[in-house]
Amino acid sequence: MPKYQPLDSLKSPRFSGVSTFMRLPNIHTLEDVDFIVTGVPFDTGGTFRVGCRFGPKAIRDASVILKPFNPELNINIFEHCSGVDYGDIDIVPGFIEDSYQKIEEELIPVFVNDIIPICMGGDHSITLPELRAVAKTKGPVALIHFDSHSDTYDSYFGHRYNHGTPFRRAVEEKLLLTDNSIQVGIRGPIYEPQNLEEARQLGFEILSAGEIRKIGIEESIKRIRKRVQDKPAFVTFDIDFLDAAYAPGTGTPEIGGFSTWEAQKFLREGLAGLNIIGYDLVEVLPSYDPSSITSFAAAGMIYEFISLIALNKKNRNIMEIKGISV
Amino acid sequence: MPKYQPLDSLKSPRFSGVSTFMRLPNIHTLEDVDFIVTGVPFDTGGTFRVGCRFGPKAIRDASVILKPFNPELNINIFEHCSGVDYGDIDIVPGFIEDSYQKIEEELIPVFVNDIIPICMGGDHSITLPELRAVAKTKGPVALIHFDSHSDTYDSYFGHRYNHGTPFRRAVEEKLLLTDNSIQVGIRGPIYEPQNLEEARQLGFEILSAGEIRKIGIEESIKRIRKRVQDKPAFVTFDIDFLDAAYAPGTGTPEIGGFSTWEAQKFLREGLAGLNIIGYDLVEVLPSYDPSSITSFAAAGMIYEFISLIALNKKNRNIMEIKGISV
Amino acid sequence: MPKYQPLDSLKSPRFSGVSTFMRLPNIHTLEDVDFIVTGVPFDTGGTFRVGCRFGPKAIRDASVILKPFNPELNINIFEHCSGVDYGDIDIVPGFIEDSYQKIEEELIPVFVNDIIPICMGGDHSITLPELRAVAKTKGPVALIHFDSHSDTYDSYFGHRYNHGTPFRRAVEEKLLLTDNSIQVGIRGPIYEPQNLEEARQLGFEILSAGEIRKIGIEESIKRIRKRVQDKPAFVTFDIDFLDAAYAPGTGTPEIGGFSTWEAQKFLREGLAGLNIIGYDLVEVLPSYDPSSITSFAAAGMIYEFISLIALNKKNRNIMEIKGISV
Amino acid sequence: MPKYQPLDSLKSPRFSGVSTFMRLPNIHTLEDVDFIVTGVPFDTGGTFRVGCRFGPKAIRDASVILKPFNPELNINIFEHCSGVDYGDIDIVPGFIEDSYQKIEEELIPVFVNDIIPICMGGDHSITLPELRAVAKTKGPVALIHFDSHSDTYDSYFGHRYNHGTPFRRAVEEKLLLTDNSIQVGIRGPIYEPQNLEEARQLGFEILSAGEIRKIGIEESIKRIRKRVQDKPAFVTFDIDFLDAAYAPGTGTPEIGGFSTWEAQKFLREGLAGLNIIGYDLVEVLPSYDPSSITSFAAAGMIYEFISLIALNKKNRNIMEIKGISV
Amino acid sequence: MPKYQPLDSLKSPRFSGVSTFMRLPNIHTLEDVDFIVTGVPFDTGGTFRVGCRFGPKAIRDASVILKPFNPELNINIFEHCSGVDYGDIDIVPGFIEDSYQKIEEELIPVFVNDIIPICMGGDHSITLPELRAVAKTKGPVALIHFDSHSDTYDSYFGHRYNHGTPFRRAVEEKLLLTDNSIQVGIRGPIYEPQNLEEARQLGFEILSAGEIRKIGIEESIKRIRKRVQDKPAFVTFDIDFLDAAYAPGTGTPEIGGFSTWEAQKFLREGLAGLNIIGYDLVEVLPSYDPSSITSFAAAGMIYEFISLIALNKKNRNIMEIKGISV
Amino acid sequence: MPKYQPLDSLKSPRFSGVSTFMRLPNIHTLEDVDFIVTGVPFDTGGTFRVGCRFGPKAIRDASVILKPFNPELNINIFEHCSGVDYGDIDIVPGFIEDSYQKIEEELIPVFVNDIIPICMGGDHSITLPELRAVAKTKGPVALIHFDSHSDTYDSYFGHRYNHGTPFRRAVEEKLLLTDNSIQVGIRGPIYEPQNLEEARQLGFEILSAGEIRKIGIEESIKRIRKRVQDKPAFVTFDIDFLDAAYAPGTGTPEIGGFSTWEAQKFLREGLAGLNIIGYDLVEVLPSYDPSSITSFAAAGMIYEFISLIALNKKNRNIMEIKGISV
Repeated sequence: MPKYQPLDSLKSPRFSGVSTFMRLPNIHTLEDVDFIVTGVPFDTGGTFRVGCRFGPKAIRDASVILKPFNPELNINIFEHCSGVDYGDIDIVPGFIEDSYQKIEEELIPVFVNDIIPICMGGDHSITLPELRAVAKTKGPVALIHFDSHSDTYDSYFGHRYNHGTPFRRAVEEKLLLTDNSIQVGIRGPIYEPQNLEEARQLGFEILSAGEIRKIGIEESIKRIRKRVQDKPAFVTFDIDFLDAAYAPGTGTPEIGGFSTWEAQKFLREGLAGLNIIGYDLVEVLPSYDPSSITSFAAAGMIYEFISLIALNKKNRNIMEIKGISV
Repeated sequence: MPKYQPLDSLKSPRFSGVSTFMRLPNIHTLEDVDFIVTGVPFDTGGTFRVGCRFGPKAIRDASVILKPFNPELNINIFEHCSGVDYGDIDIVPGFIEDSYQKIEEELIPVFVNDIIPICMGGDHSITLPELRAVAKTKGPVALIHFDSHSDTYDSYFGHRYNHGTPFRRAVEEKLLLTDNSIQVGIRGPIYEPQNLEEARQLGFEILSAGEIRKIGIEESIKRIRKRVQDKPAFVTFDIDFLDAAYAPGTGTPEIGGFSTWEAQKFLREGLAGLNIIGYDLVEVLPSYDPSSITSFAAAGMIYEFISLIALNKKNRNIMEIKGISV
Repeated sequence: MPKYQPLDSLKSPRFSGVSTFMRLPNIHTLEDVDFIVTGVPFDTGGTFRVGCRFGPKAIRDASVILKPFNPELNINIFEHCSGVDYGDIDIVPGFIEDSYQKIEEELIPVFVNDIIPICMGGDHSITLPELRAVAKTKGPVALIHFDSHSDTYDSYFGHRYNHGTPFRRAVEEKLLLTDNSIQVGIRGPIYEPQNLEEARQLGFEILSAGEIRKIGIEESIKRIRKRVQDKPAFVTFDIDFLDAAYAPGTGTPEIGGFSTWEAQKFLREGLAGLNIIGYDLVEVLPSYDPSSITSFAAAGMIYEFISLIALNKKNRNIMEIKGISV
Repeated sequence: MPKYQPLDSLKSPRFSGVSTFMRLPNIHTLEDVDFIVTGVPFDTGGTFRVGCRFGPKAIRDASVILKPFNPELNINIFEHCSGVDYGDIDIVPGFIEDSYQKIEEELIPVFVNDIIPICMGGDHSITLPELRAVAKTKGPVALIHFDSHSDTYDSYFGHRYNHGTPFRRAVEEKLLLTDNSIQVGIRGPIYEPQNLEEARQLGFEILSAGEIRKIGIEESIKRIRKRVQDKPAFVTFDIDFLDAAYAPGTGTPEIGGFSTWEAQKFLREGLAGLNIIGYDLVEVLPSYDPSSITSFAAAGMIYEFISLIALNKKNRNIMEIKGISV
Repeated sequence: MPKYQPLDSLKSPRFSGVSTFMRLPNIHTLEDVDFIVTGVPFDTGGTFRVGCRFGPKAIRDASVILKPFNPELNINIFEHCSGVDYGDIDIVPGFIEDSYQKIEEELIPVFVNDIIPICMGGDHSITLPELRAVAKTKGPVALIHFDSHSDTYDSYFGHRYNHGTPFRRAVEEKLLLTDNSIQVGIRGPIYEPQNLEEARQLGFEILSAGEIRKIGIEESIKRIRKRVQDKPAFVTFDIDFLDAAYAPGTGTPEIGGFSTWEAQKFLREGLAGLNIIGYDLVEVLPSYDPSSITSFAAAGMIYEFISLIALNKKNRNIMEIKGISV
Repeated sequence: MPKYQPLDSLKSPRFSGVSTFMRLPNIHTLEDVDFIVTGVPFDTGGTFRVGCRFGPKAIRDASVILKPFNPELNINIFEHCSGVDYGDIDIVPGFIEDSYQKIEEELIPVFVNDIIPICMGGDHSITLPELRAVAKTKGPVALIHFDSHSDTYDSYFGHRYNHGTPFRRAVEEKLLLTDNSIQVGIRGPIYEPQNLEEARQLGFEILSAGEIRKIGIEESIKRIRKRVQDKPAFVTFDIDFLDAAYAPGTGTPEIGGFSTWEAQKFLREGLAGLNIIGYDLVEVLPSYDPSSITSFAAAGMIYEFISLIALNKKNRNIMEIKGISV
């Protein structure tokens, strides 16, 4: 049996006690774990609505309804892997470069130990230091980026670091395998026609919402898998990939988006078996989420991440048992 | 003209007066009625968010916008049937067995008089005493169960009665024609892989959300009709059959679900003409429903129930006129 | 460069300053503008929930996130046209006929100057004086009406003017080219079977939600274009065309409706190139919109209106350059 | 025992059933009743936030927690009097003169039968037709007016009837014993210095919030009693007499106001034994009252009204028993 | 230095990490602690609004703003005592007697170890098993009960255990030193005049809100101290002691109550130096508390409890140093 | 007549049009104005809840209910002075030093022109650059500081600029006449006993909430006036001076505070006639203010500021007329 397991909600009511992600133990350890869930409550990078610093707490509160067996992926998660709620990274509110350093420093040992981190934002500016930690320890990675915004602007108000620029910076800093990277779900108004063009010139494939609606989700999934191949990959999921009706509680809600069902399909079928070494889910903003559906959606997406980790672990174990090297 | 009709909102403003379901008269009578709408404000059975005791009031408040003609089913409801707002059943908050007894006792005369009850929950634990009343008066029935959860766990915290167990109990108590019963829309994490398996072993057909997405709603509707046939049936509709974006105000919101349009289609096309002798709609939780869309959705679903009752009544009248026995 | 442009949100933060629509200048001018956005905060015509008088403010607040390039229509709006936030029309709360007069008087010079007004309601009763202004200056027009309700009742409580009757009045007053007019998205309960029949007898084509689901959006779009042809047209968009989950903040929310994506498709593909001379968007009710998604949806729909205006302007300019008369 | 009594909440849970005021029977009768509670859901007179049409429903929902014995006034209400929830008066939304007529017509028989009406607004414009009904049946009355605003403006937007003008109209129409009338709690900005002066010239005594703070509540109470004497009186209570923290859900919230405790003291000690023949409580606006405290406050104020009625009834009975004429 | 201390919010941002009470360590230990804070998320005893099961989480979330020095009591809390967030007691939702047993069993060792528990409810029914644990380990105690309701009814719906009856049961079970017990702040309607009389006959002194207003808080404080003397005491604080404006998020909000400042004064001056061996704070209901002020108030009251514990500890240490036996 | 006046809400409904403060013209001018109201939507300095960037918009929205005559101060504001809504200062979200520079640069010309700025925050970190602008143009000033927190910490997370440190910085930078400066209303937990001691050592007089309750508001007012004398003064008002029940929408709500009435008294009687050359009002956080009472309170406080400006202007004019030099 993997070491760390959620509390059993058939015995202890799930609304009971301190809220940790999925009722996993809250331990700051890298031993005996396959994944960690950690909060990165940094929101100084936001250019419109702010308050994502409370995202991790809200996602934890919603996650207590999750149960260990995922019927769609047919996986009993904690038979195959162990995980903890690692607590939050102590960022410095109001100071992006200090916070970047703390995030990077905190994540490096996670990657060094081949543990998969799942970071709960915070705004999207946090993905840059996450990718720095990845690149320093594992080399550049493929980026699988679910979002309504490309986040590849050059600067805002003369500054280069905020929640609208991380992926331009990531390319500039050579953190990504751009040939294997893809942005999925992009939609909504932009400043200039060249904005998307530039993202493409940076090397990203862009699968816009418009195109997804045209070719369908099945075909879109094929595109993702074809692009990423078996490269080590990092998944970043901005909750505004979902339509504003499904995720009102976010920094820059965008209409014309995807349902949670569509998102689940993207994750389950689009990512199963890929070689994903890190995840984040960002831009959950609880103060604009009066009935918490955004947090439930976020917890549900992270649930799929964990299921994918368990699935890979299970398959690897099967292969190991069968004597196949991995 | 059937006896009891809603107030005319072209004359008396619909926001006016005491809220009764669809502005029907609030009378505790079984005479001259074809259906009753009654509240069952019991919520002690809830294992996560609670407060469904205020569900009936909220559904009544939303229902005042309903009008008597249903264009999709082409039925002028109150030309064919009469109904009242029967008030609420006086359950005992905090005491499930006492409440079960009161619910059963109150509903028995309704069934004895061949009147169709529409019960507004309350949490899903209330369906068990409803089915006991059915079985005592009419024998076992087919169950048509719309929900994201199978509600066939054995027990929580060592107790057998709550909102997660009613349908296992119903089978054990032989209240159902399990061969004609079906659970529709099941999705989301479960405790163990065997949970769904056990529901199937209890005799239910399970049409999961995943399967519905695969085969389509039209085909799913055929499955329901094929399963239920012309058996006397009871419809139980948990509002979390709907996606959390469409029904945030519920005890255990579940993402990846259905839209109200899809639900309407299921009810209109899936149930038209079936021999349904009772309905409930459960798990509306107003304190998590800040813009009342859950209550509007619930009122809208009940509106379809009433339309189906009127349709059956109309068809039966036509057949009677034509001399066809029914 | 067209004269009036939005503030640049890469330099001035978009949450900054007095909220005007899309951060356009707030000037009451008809010079050097192609379109104006104006509020019509009249809500005395509402028969259920009220408070649409605050609609224009809320839409302005949401609109500050809009950016000038629309990728789906491939148009850089303010390269082709100029617009201002014209402020609100000073209606008289509580007095519908006075308000009608003020709305009509204020809009006549707009049409006389061939400027396209985009009116932000307010409840749907405001469309009647808008159409009076149109007809007085341009003659009768085709009506393209997105809504869940036909709004062709004859009267409420013995009165002929409110938000349920404007389009019957418009026909009676001969303001419309009824043969080119169409109502799209109609759904939900009505008082009597003849309600819709009467709307048809008034001359409208009705494309109900049920029919749209049957024939698909692409085919529905063809119907609209076929109906309207190249006639001068007025677009009125009731936010309850959208499903209650996408637009909870409205006077009479209706379930079983459309997503914002579907609405965008209707506008982008259904209306591109049509000869539209005026627009309104009505029934946004902020006090029932706790996370503002209704206002974001409304701002997004108006964004498509403006994009369509720019697109027509661009094409006309191209034709002019090519020496084609328009 | 007086005929109509509230349901017993020790037997039937108080959250159960259709909400009527204080769980009294919902009967439109003038027989065997000492008082009626009736809704007047008219809000067309509002000049800022609107939606008081839902005030009566919200007050009813909150009132179900009330219990029959008032310890501060030491009165067991329903030992001494009988009352019903009379339903709402069918006003005509959007049409103030029609509505005035309906309100007056509906209330005349109430006064004719010497029954005390308690009207739940609705905005403050409704008090004028109430006073018309009083004056027609009983002659002019003393007005005891709790409010932050004097509501004696002459007109808004050129119109004479709305929620800012009723008491100027009432004086003009000679409905009041102005020498015995008093406005209590007036505060907040006004348009011009003469506004309050004019109210005084109309004949009202004005006891402003500033003055109440200076002289104390005890002394203020003496002033009220001295002013009103034993004249037949009508009490109108605008919920914005309370501070915005105690009553956020109102049309024009005013800071610097009174607590519910202070209001209770005013009612209990200021009005006990006065000859009050009618009451209203206006300007409750539920859509701005997210935790319902405004409705609880309103229900609590009406509870004091009913207690005062019972107290007078008790004293009269005692006097009758003692052979003292009344 | 006492062992367990809160996290330093000048180094780790206070919004960061898993929420524990006041950022104390979340450890289920009775070693090296002077007090524990523990959640008792039981709400089956509620007779109106429910959902206090989420009270402990909400209080924890609000408590993270607390800092260690209390200037009014001039005490640096964690110089004198050590405390932990003990987690929640695993009650059984829906089953009051099972839950009572669990609460009692869990608290007995706490009292045996002379550790002071601070229980966060949950509804007021939880105080009975707390008092049972007290009495079993320490003998009967004085009760200092802040509340708007006396909670000494005999039964509801034929049942003896719920949030309206605990203190009658406590007397019957001889858990209290009634001669030293006092109920403070009682107000609001009751069922019958004898309700309060009976509470007095049970032995309680009742200091009603009306009386407190008359004699003043200073004098009321003297009454409390005179009543309790130096007896071992238990403090139970129902958040509805506060006015509904200060604590909207509660099961049965009551107007006419106390401000947080007044409550702080009662605790600081009324209880300082008394021999208090246990505390609870109950009836916080987050789903009716949209801006969380109820939770902030609750956290603030518990902060005073902890300060009082530290103060006693400090004084005892001083006395010990001075060689005075305690 | 002074040049700039609010719109007349008896002619144009006050809910109409773009929201500016008190419906004043939105012009970026320093000519013909006595005061300006300007937004400073900077919130990067917040250490707990964030989002004060939306404070200015929310205060503007609430301010439209204000009217020009202040009865308590007996002043018809715009007979004596002229003011505009100056728009917002374009701060740089996420970058405190850049923002400080912009705020200072923008305010210097205001002070140079002897115009009185009223700054709407934003968080409390903005007061430092405001004071820098004051000191550069006018020399050091007396500070009159209403707040629950002293905001004189040295640093957070190793950084010296945020909303908890501005007044220590201000002293260090010699911007204040500390002998004439006073902090009023301080309350709530602090990190260490020396925190307040240090504030005193920096030179501030501290009038804590506890002391105010002891000596009364009248006496407290005398202390303020005695301290400030006739020195040029700057007033900074943190909305959390008000109790959390009166101002829930703020960054760090503090219980045990003041009512709006008490605050009005402090401003009206405490500041009338003082030589105040600048004002700010900070920490309004709309996303935690569901019924907007915090914004109404903030608008009301600014209303008193403007009244005080008008009062000084009136008195100066009277003195000038009488030939008294000022």
